Amino acid sequence: MAHSFKGVIPILATPFNDDESLDLASWQKMIAFMVDSKVDGITILGVLGESNRLSDHERETLIKSAVATVGKKIPVIVGTSHTGSAAAAYLSTMAENLGADAVMVTPAKEPVPNDERIVEYYRRISEKTSLPIVLQDHPASTEVHMSAPLILRIVKEVASVACIKAEAVPTPPKIRALRAGLSRPVSILSGLGALYAPFDLEAGSDGFNTGFAFPEVLRALVDAANAKDFDRVHALYARFAALIVFEQQPGLAIRKEILKQRGLIASNRVRHPGATITAPVAAEVAALISRTLPGIDVTRAFVP
Amino acid sequence: MAHSFKGVIPILATPFNDDESLDLASWQKMIAFMVDSKVDGITILGVLGESNRLSDHERETLIKSAVATVGKKIPVIVGTSHTGSAAAAYLSTMAENLGADAVMVTPAKEPVPNDERIVEYYRRISEKTSLPIVLQDHPASTEVHMSAPLILRIVKEVASVACIKAEAVPTPPKIRALRAGLSRPVSILSGLGALYAPFDLEAGSDGFNTGFAFPEVLRALVDAANAKDFDRVHALYARFAALIVFEQQPGLAIRKEILKQRGLIASNRVRHPGATITAPVAAEVAALISRTLPGIDVTRAFVP
Amino acid sequence: MAHSFKGVIPILATPFNDDESLDLASWQKMIAFMVDSKVDGITILGVLGESNRLSDHERETLIKSAVATVGKKIPVIVGTSHTGSAAAAYLSTMAENLGADAVMVTPAKEPVPNDERIVEYYRRISEKTSLPIVLQDHPASTEVHMSAPLILRIVKEVASVACIKAEAVPTPPKIRALRAGLSRPVSILSGLGALYAPFDLEAGSDGFNTGFAFPEVLRALVDAANAKDFDRVHALYARFAALIVFEQQPGLAIRKEILKQRGLIASNRVRHPGATITAPVAAEVAALISRTLPGIDVTRAFVP
Amino acid sequence: MAHSFKGVIPILATPFNDDESLDLASWQKMIAFMVDSKVDGITILGVLGESNRLSDHERETLIKSAVATVGKKIPVIVGTSHTGSAAAAYLSTMAENLGADAVMVTPAKEPVPNDERIVEYYRRISEKTSLPIVLQDHPASTEVHMSAPLILRIVKEVASVACIKAEAVPTPPKIRALRAGLSRPVSILSGLGALYAPFDLEAGSDGFNTGFAFPEVLRALVDAANAKDFDRVHALYARFAALIVFEQQPGLAIRKEILKQRGLIASNRVRHPGATITAPVAAEVAALISRTLPGIDVTRAFVP
Repeated sequence: MAHSFKGVIPILATPFNDDESLDLASWQKMIAFMVDSKVDGITILGVLGESNRLSDHERETLIKSAVATVGKKIPVIVGTSHTGSAAAAYLSTMAENLGADAVMVTPAKEPVPNDERIVEYYRRISEKTSLPIVLQDHPASTEVHMSAPLILRIVKEVASVACIKAEAVPTPPKIRALRAGLSRPVSILSGLGALYAPFDLEAGSDGFNTGFAFPEVLRALVDAANAKDFDRVHALYARFAALIVFEQQPGLAIRKEILKQRGLIASNRVRHPGATITAPVAAEVAALISRTLPGIDVTRAFVP
Repeated sequence: MAHSFKGVIPILATPFNDDESLDLASWQKMIAFMVDSKVDGITILGVLGESNRLSDHERETLIKSAVATVGKKIPVIVGTSHTGSAAAAYLSTMAENLGADAVMVTPAKEPVPNDERIVEYYRRISEKTSLPIVLQDHPASTEVHMSAPLILRIVKEVASVACIKAEAVPTPPKIRALRAGLSRPVSILSGLGALYAPFDLEAGSDGFNTGFAFPEVLRALVDAANAKDFDRVHALYARFAALIVFEQQPGLAIRKEILKQRGLIASNRVRHPGATITAPVAAEVAALISRTLPGIDVTRAFVP
Repeated sequence: MAHSFKGVIPILATPFNDDESLDLASWQKMIAFMVDSKVDGITILGVLGESNRLSDHERETLIKSAVATVGKKIPVIVGTSHTGSAAAAYLSTMAENLGADAVMVTPAKEPVPNDERIVEYYRRISEKTSLPIVLQDHPASTEVHMSAPLILRIVKEVASVACIKAEAVPTPPKIRALRAGLSRPVSILSGLGALYAPFDLEAGSDGFNTGFAFPEVLRALVDAANAKDFDRVHALYARFAALIVFEQQPGLAIRKEILKQRGLIASNRVRHPGATITAPVAAEVAALISRTLPGIDVTRAFVP
Repeated sequence: MAHSFKGVIPILATPFNDDESLDLASWQKMIAFMVDSKVDGITILGVLGESNRLSDHERETLIKSAVATVGKKIPVIVGTSHTGSAAAAYLSTMAENLGADAVMVTPAKEPVPNDERIVEYYRRISEKTSLPIVLQDHPASTEVHMSAPLILRIVKEVASVACIKAEAVPTPPKIRALRAGLSRPVSILSGLGALYAPFDLEAGSDGFNTGFAFPEVLRALVDAANAKDFDRVHALYARFAALIVFEQQPGLAIRKEILKQRGLIASNRVRHPGATITAPVAAEVAALISRTLPGIDVTRAFVP
C-alpha cells in the first residue's frame, strides 16, 4: 500500500528515564496518543528523537516497540541517517525488517562538498531497502547544502524518494522551486517546528513533519490550507505563534518539557551532553501554555 | 550626556541605488522617519547595514550623513566591528571624530577560541575611543561564543561597555543570567528581528536594537512591558508574529523590500553577492503587510 | 597490569572488501604484522578506522577479532567516541567486555561550547568502564577546542585518563603546557600522521599514536628521541618527510593504498561517501615509496 | 606588458612596529631583498599580509610604498578580496590606480553556496579593473569550495583571470584536473607554505606563490622542476622539509619570527587578536634554522 506522506506526521522525541535509560512506557503512551489524534504517520529516530545519542541496539528496541504500538494504523517512518552510506543502508534494512513503512535520510557531510556523491548516497540506500525514502533537507543540522536542482535530480534518479522534508531556509522559495520542478508526484512537508507554517503552506507544502508538541494545531493548519482558507491559517498561526516560536528554540529540552506537561512522557530528561531544562524555563513553558490555551486540559487532545 | 541605551533603537539598512552605489537621499529620509518616530537612538553599519560590504570611505560618508541628519536629537550608534582590534579601534575613532555617540562591537573570531583575547579586544577599543560601547553577542554571525560569565567579566573590566545586545539563542536564560550578574547598570537590548520579543521582555530586556521595519510595534511592545502589561505584549506579538517571523528569515532582501514598501528607501537592492528579492517574494511581503495592517498606510508612522 | 601508553601505538585502518563489507582476513594480517613489528599497542576504530561509518555490530566483530589476534601481547585500545555520553559509555563497556585494554575518546561537539560538560563527559564514561582512557584532542575532526587548563582539569578529576593524544595545532606549545601542568604521570602521544614528529618529540611527546603506515620509522624516531639523539631524529625526518607529508593529506584513501602496497590489506576501498584512490595517485604512492626506500621490500618490516 | 605569473612570487608579511603601527622601513627593506633575490613578482596584502586587519587607508599606504620600492622591476600583485564584490572592485581599482600589476582575489562566502554568484563575483571585479586577476582557491581560509569545473568555467568566462593559486587540499589531483581542462594558457601556482612542493611540481604547478621565508629554496625547487630534475626537487625538499613544516603551522607568528631572524623585519609583532610568538618558540626557530643551514648567514640571500 502506497502512502501519501501528506498531512500531519509528527517527529517524536525519545523519552528517557532520569538515568537516561529508555522509557518504553512513555514511548508507547506518546505513540498511542498520536494514533488517537488521527495523525497521518509518525517519524521516529530523527534529530528530535536524539538518534545521534542512541546505540544501534536501542534503535532496534524503539522501532520494534513503535511498530507494535501503531499496529499498522498509520505509517511509521524511521530516521536512518548516518555518516556513511553502508551504515545508513544497514539501519534502513533493520527498519524494514522490523516492520517500518519508510525511512528518513539526510545526506552525509564530506570535507569537500560533492553533489554526485549525494545522489549516489540516496541511490545506494534505495538499492538496499524497498522502503520509500523521505529526503530531509536540513542544512542547519547536516551542514550539507542541496540546491533545488540537485534535489530534483535525486527525485528523478532514485525512484523510492517519496517525500521531501523541506527545511532549508528560506523555505518558501525552495518549496516553490521544488513544486515547479518535480517530475513525478512527491510530497513536500514542512519542519522547523512549524515556524514558517503560513508561508510554507502558501508556497505549496503538503503538511508538517515536525516535532511541535500540539499536532492538533498542525492538523487545523493543514485542514485550513487544504480548504484554501488562509485567513484561518493566519488566525491559527497568530494564536499559537508564541508557543511555536518558544518551542523551536535551539535544544530539545523545551520540547520534552511540553510533552511532559501534556502528560505524554514522564521525564524531560535529554541525554547528556544535551542540556536538560531548568526550573524557571519549565515554569515559563507552563505559563505560556496557560496563556495560549486558557482553561484547556492539554493532557488530552483538543480542538483548536 | 550619558545615554541609557534602552527602549527602541532600530538597526538601519544601508540603501543602495540599483547600481549598488550609496543612496544618500534614502538614507536621510529613513533616518528622518526614525527620528520623527521618537525612537531612542539608531544604529548604523551593523550586519543589516551590510557593513561587511562597505569600504572605509563609504562608512565615513554614511556616518557623516547620519550624524548631520539626526542633529543630536537621539544617539547615533555606529557598528565598528572588524577582524582585528587595531582596525576596530580605527573605525571607532573615525566614528567618534565624525560625531557618533557610541559604537557597537562584536568579538573577532580566532582559529582557537580564547576568552582572554576577547577581553583584551574590548579593552583595546575602549582605550582608543571615549565613546560608550554596545557589546554585541551574536554567535550566528560571529561564530564566537561568549559565556555569560565572560560577558560579565568584560562589563567589569571595561568601563565603557554600556549596553549588551543579547542575541545568543536561547536568549531568555542568557538575559536572566546577565541581569542577575551585572555589577553596574548596563542595559540589555534584544535583537534577532524581535523574534523572541515577549520572552526577552519577560526575562528583563530593556528594549530592542534590531532591524524590524516597524519601530512603532517595537515601541508598543516596550511601553507595554514597561507598564508590566504582558497581556498586551502577547496580544501585540500575536498580531505581528507572522510579519516578525517572515522578516527575520535569512538574508537582507526581505527587510529592504519592507522598507521600500514603507517608502523609506527607493530600491531593495542588496549588494552582491547577497541576494536581492524576487518578484513573488515582494508580492508576498505586500500581501502580508496588507493582511497584518489592513487599511493602514504604512508609508507613515502608525499607532499599533 | 598498568600500561604506559608510550612509544609506538599505530592507529589501524579498517580493511574492507571491494563491496565495502569487512575484510577480517586483512584485519588479522595487519594486526599480526603490527604485533610482529614490536609496536607498543594498537588503536582500532579511530577516525582512520572509519569508525563513523560502522554499525555497532561491526564494531563488535572488529574488536573481538583484534583482541583474539593480539592475544594479550600488547594493549588494544578501542575508539569509542560518540555524540552522546551514554552511547560512548555503552561502546566503552562493550569494548571492555570484549577484552580491550583501553578506550580512546574525543569530546562531543555541542551547539554552545561548555567546558563543564566536557569534564562530565569524561567522568561519565569513566564511571561505566574500568578501562584507562586515552583523551584525544583533535579539533580538526571534532570541532571542539579544549584549552590546556581544561585538559589538565580532566586529568585531575578523572583518574582513569591515562594518556593524551595531542593533535591540536600548533602541537609543540600545547605539549609543553600539558607536560608542565600535569599533576600525575600521564603519557602524551603525537598523532596527525607524525607531521610534527621532531618538534613534538623535542617538546616532550612520549611517542606516536597515529596511522602513518611505517611503524618502523616511528619506532626509530622514538628510539632516537629516547636516546636524546635529535640529530638522528632530524635525519630520519628529512629522509621520510615527503612520505609523511604525502600520507597525511586529507582523506583516508592514500593511507589505505600504502597499506595495500605493503601487502597488509587486500583492497584500498574506503567506505562511501569517502573517496577511494584514483590510479594516478596510486602510481604516485608507488613511486614515492620506491624513491624513499629504494630496493626495500616494504611488504616486510624493515629497519630504517 | 603581459606577465606570466610563473616561478617564485612570495607572499609578503606586513611588518608592524611593537605598537602595531605600520613599519614602512621594514616593508621597503623586505621588498628590496625580494627584488634583489630575483623573484618573479611579489604579492602583498594576502592572508599572511594580515590584510583582514588593515584599514583601507593602510592598504593604500602599503601599495604605494611597495610599488615605489619595486620600481616596475617585477610585478606587484595586491590582495583585494572582500566580503562583497563592490568593495573588492573598489580595492582592485585602488590597486590599479596606485600602480599595481595584478590583483589576487578569493571568492566571498555566502550562507547558501552558489556557483553562479562566484562566477559573477569574478566577472564584476574584472569589469571594474583592467588588471589581471590571480584566482586564489584556498578553502581553509575562505570556507568556499570551488570545484575544478567551476574554476575552469571562471577561466573561460572571465578573460582577465591569468593565474590560479591552487591551495585546495589535496592539491596534486586538483592541479592535474585544472591543467587538463584549461581552455587557454593560465598559470597555476602553489601556496600552503610549499608543504606539498614536490607533489605539486610533479602535478604541473608553475611555481610558488606563498610566504615561505626562504625564496632561495623555492627558486631552487622551481629551477630543478623546470629542468625535470625531480631527484634534486626531492633532495631539496628533504633538506628543508622540517623548516617548511614548522613554518606552515597555523598562525603567522612563526613566519614573522623567521623574517625577523633573517633581518628583513624589525619586529615579529602580529596584530591583535592574532598571537605573537613566545620566547621558547623563537628559540626553536633559531635552532631549526641553524640545524638546517649550518654556518650560513641567513640575513643574506644564499644559494641552497
